Amino acid sequence: MTFSGQMINAETKRLPFDAKHDGRFEGQHILSIGQFSLQDLVYIFDVAEEFRLMVRRVGALELLKGRILANLFYEPSTRTSSSFIAAMQRLGGTVIPINEVRYSSVSKGESLPDTIRTLESYADVIVLRHHETGSAALAAKYAHKPVINAGDGIGEHPTQALLDLYTILQERAKVSGLTITMLGDLKYGRTVHSLAKLLSLFDVKINYVSPEILRMPADLITHLDGKGIKQTQHTDLDAVLKETDILYVTRIQKERFSSETEYNSVKNSYVITPDTLAQAKPDMVLMHPLPRVGEISMEVDDDPRAAYFRQMEYGVYIRMALLALVLGKA
Amino acid sequence: MTFSGQMINAETKRLPFDAKHDGRFEGQHILSIGQFSLQDLVYIFDVAEEFRLMVRRVGALELLKGRILANLFYEPSTRTSSSFIAAMQRLGGTVIPINEVRYSSVSKGESLPDTIRTLESYADVIVLRHHETGSAALAAKYAHKPVINAGDGIGEHPTQALLDLYTILQERAKVSGLTITMLGDLKYGRTVHSLAKLLSLFDVKINYVSPEILRMPADLITHLDGKGIKQTQHTDLDAVLKETDILYVTRIQKERFSSETEYNSVKNSYVITPDTLAQAKPDMVLMHPLPRVGEISMEVDDDPRAAYFRQMEYGVYIRMALLALVLGKA
Amino acid sequence: MTFSGQMINAETKRLPFDAKHDGRFEGQHILSIGQFSLQDLVYIFDVAEEFRLMVRRVGALELLKGRILANLFYEPSTRTSSSFIAAMQRLGGTVIPINEVRYSSVSKGESLPDTIRTLESYADVIVLRHHETGSAALAAKYAHKPVINAGDGIGEHPTQALLDLYTILQERAKVSGLTITMLGDLKYGRTVHSLAKLLSLFDVKINYVSPEILRMPADLITHLDGKGIKQTQHTDLDAVLKETDILYVTRIQKERFSSETEYNSVKNSYVITPDTLAQAKPDMVLMHPLPRVGEISMEVDDDPRAAYFRQMEYGVYIRMALLALVLGKA
Repeated sequence: MTFSGQMINAETKRLPFDAKHDGRFEGQHILSIGQFSLQDLVYIFDVAEEFRLMVRRVGALELLKGRILANLFYEPSTRTSSSFIAAMQRLGGTVIPINEVRYSSVSKGESLPDTIRTLESYADVIVLRHHETGSAALAAKYAHKPVINAGDGIGEHPTQALLDLYTILQERAKVSGLTITMLGDLKYGRTVHSLAKLLSLFDVKINYVSPEILRMPADLITHLDGKGIKQTQHTDLDAVLKETDILYVTRIQKERFSSETEYNSVKNSYVITPDTLAQAKPDMVLMHPLPRVGEISMEVDDDPRAAYFRQMEYGVYIRMALLALVLGKA
Repeated sequence: MTFSGQMINAETKRLPFDAKHDGRFEGQHILSIGQFSLQDLVYIFDVAEEFRLMVRRVGALELLKGRILANLFYEPSTRTSSSFIAAMQRLGGTVIPINEVRYSSVSKGESLPDTIRTLESYADVIVLRHHETGSAALAAKYAHKPVINAGDGIGEHPTQALLDLYTILQERAKVSGLTITMLGDLKYGRTVHSLAKLLSLFDVKINYVSPEILRMPADLITHLDGKGIKQTQHTDLDAVLKETDILYVTRIQKERFSSETEYNSVKNSYVITPDTLAQAKPDMVLMHPLPRVGEISMEVDDDPRAAYFRQMEYGVYIRMALLALVLGKA
Repeated sequence: MTFSGQMINAETKRLPFDAKHDGRFEGQHILSIGQFSLQDLVYIFDVAEEFRLMVRRVGALELLKGRILANLFYEPSTRTSSSFIAAMQRLGGTVIPINEVRYSSVSKGESLPDTIRTLESYADVIVLRHHETGSAALAAKYAHKPVINAGDGIGEHPTQALLDLYTILQERAKVSGLTITMLGDLKYGRTVHSLAKLLSLFDVKINYVSPEILRMPADLITHLDGKGIKQTQHTDLDAVLKETDILYVTRIQKERFSSETEYNSVKNSYVITPDTLAQAKPDMVLMHPLPRVGEISMEVDDDPRAAYFRQMEYGVYIRMALLALVLGKA
């Protein structure tokens, strides 16, 4: 029984921890958060926690020495790309960085399966970011080596959801019993959809705060309802701020609105400032997937409750865990 | 006497294997297939084979630990670029990836010699891909460290030709005695020209199958004729399919034709399908330099005769061999 | 007392060498040449010299094994970027190369402080190249890990100035007593401004040779005057060529002139050819920050006085020294 296992089990009291996970993810693809059981999460978080402590102690490991990651990004994402590169390097492995796909053989018309089969002949594991939903599943269908989905269009971005949940665990040492408030664009935000699904494995309350036109999709609310998750919807953060343990803020994009006036009025009412935090719990955790464009005032950054930069760091440990697990080296 | 040496010598019965090659390529440039004797090929393939087995056993080596490759690509080629990166990393070396040359000092007007002399002050070996024919020779003229040509315009791409020949050896354990059929665009295809020249070192028969306007250049046919190579020309694959041991397919580009109609009629008659393979020898080897854009149906991929993805993997071992050899570490 | 210490002290006779610098730069930012005392320079050059000898002997070290450099280039500079990559790799560290910033989260409107705080959660040190003056200082203000300025607009490029001075030391084994002539665009040339400031720590004479419209800024001349540096200004190199020990040539950009005719007349009068060197001292050192676009004839490259390619190599050792120092590992 380990770190995350203790935390999660102590809270959920639902599942005994199964220590026999060793090798469970070896050779597997990481495509969707739907593939993870609560036990899987515990296992991944335990490995991530171990890596976090070792990085803090010794900087880097040699676990994946000689292993190569093909980091295949069809659309740019410096944040996610760099996080995976750091994760692989902290484990002693090396990276083939492929960021300029639009200029390459793909522009000669090569299919994703061919690109994947080529890269797997060079590397040991493939991380794929693609603008089209379903790309990761397509890649995995043809790949003989593990594919990790780093975001496919409006589809999944499972490592983001895992790092979000891991952040909650790190910051609050539990998940069940917490009240999580999601704020901003809840309609198009891939991040909050995935996190909500993961949270449904725990005993939590979720508040959704958004403009009317950007509400959480009804089918997802129904889905969580079926799992017994308490949910409420609001347009005003004040209604739930005081009870909130985790405030998860997302970006509201101008393009979603019919007029700039409408956008500006809405935008300003969802900006987190020191005034907002003054009314929040002293141990509330303020999260954001980043990049932010004004949704959280920079004046808030030095408040200990501002967890979004720590969230980035936790992401490296999650990705280290996944890389090591699919390569059978955790 | 080793793997490739046995295979090639057993077949060619022309040259005794000279074991005293050690250090032969150290400090040398790899610019053109014309620089290799049959003994050179045997030596390179032996080293490649050794690396193939070691990668399979232990993943990666430390032979080039501390050595740096400057991977200088003036035009994008994810496939070739990634293959060299993987090769260097599998040998324990590191890579300076330079893919965005068009944005850099070159756009300030810097000459290729100056770029090369700068990079050799940082790195131990330079891989160069350039859109202009003769660039590799120009770079080599000014370089004090080894330059490996990774394709210069319609000029040479020697590592591609070497990996093609190595693939034939790997798949059929011999070269001499085989009937090789080259299909598609034989006029502009740098790949088939280089491979044909390399094959002329062996006792083979070569069939050329192409549209009339894309026939193998007459001077190259004359050249091989002078070396005693049996050659035939066709517009229809059926004429030679049954006797073919190696079917080397290349891409036919739309731009070569005066009308789209002409292109489409021709294109379809050179597509490899399961029906094609049904008429081929059971041990025929189907090759393609990739990327493909429809010349080979994806339905064929799972046929054991489809060797094009293995071909990609062999390329890594060839490039490992060349990197180790020019750095005096094979 | 070590290499550079001996050289500098022997010449300057101003400062006793303080051996107790160990750890002095650990955790610090490298933003401006203004932050360095003469003792700092001696210390940095000593470390650089040690690394130069070790690279020559063993190729690479393991000093920064497990450490990660985020190489963040908002504007392309293959030369500087590759030099830092080589420096980190020669020390056994690894690199997250970020060259395509314009396509990434920045284009979503992320601020530099947020990008820096994200990258420091992945890496141990950040090298920053940015088109806006003051960017490095802004980044450093928010960073909790060392930031090294690799050029910020028309602001500073401290590692260039350090490598220039280190080149003079390497080539002439002293600085004080030398006559340095700076040639070309002295008005906009960030490089010559920084070098002049560094040289003012020594007892040197500086000649400025430029077109009238590209003269060294008056305030900088006044500044050096206040430090007792002898300075002269000319439009013609002949006036000072014979007395010159170090000839530092810079590029004259067409955009600085009102007409192409004016540009061409001026440009040609500042081109270094074998004829120029025929009139120069036999031990003169010819430097250029590169890239050059015709200011120095290629015919001059093989003259032993042509030091600009060696200058590039020295840059790697300077950057190795700075990386090791700020990471507390020198």
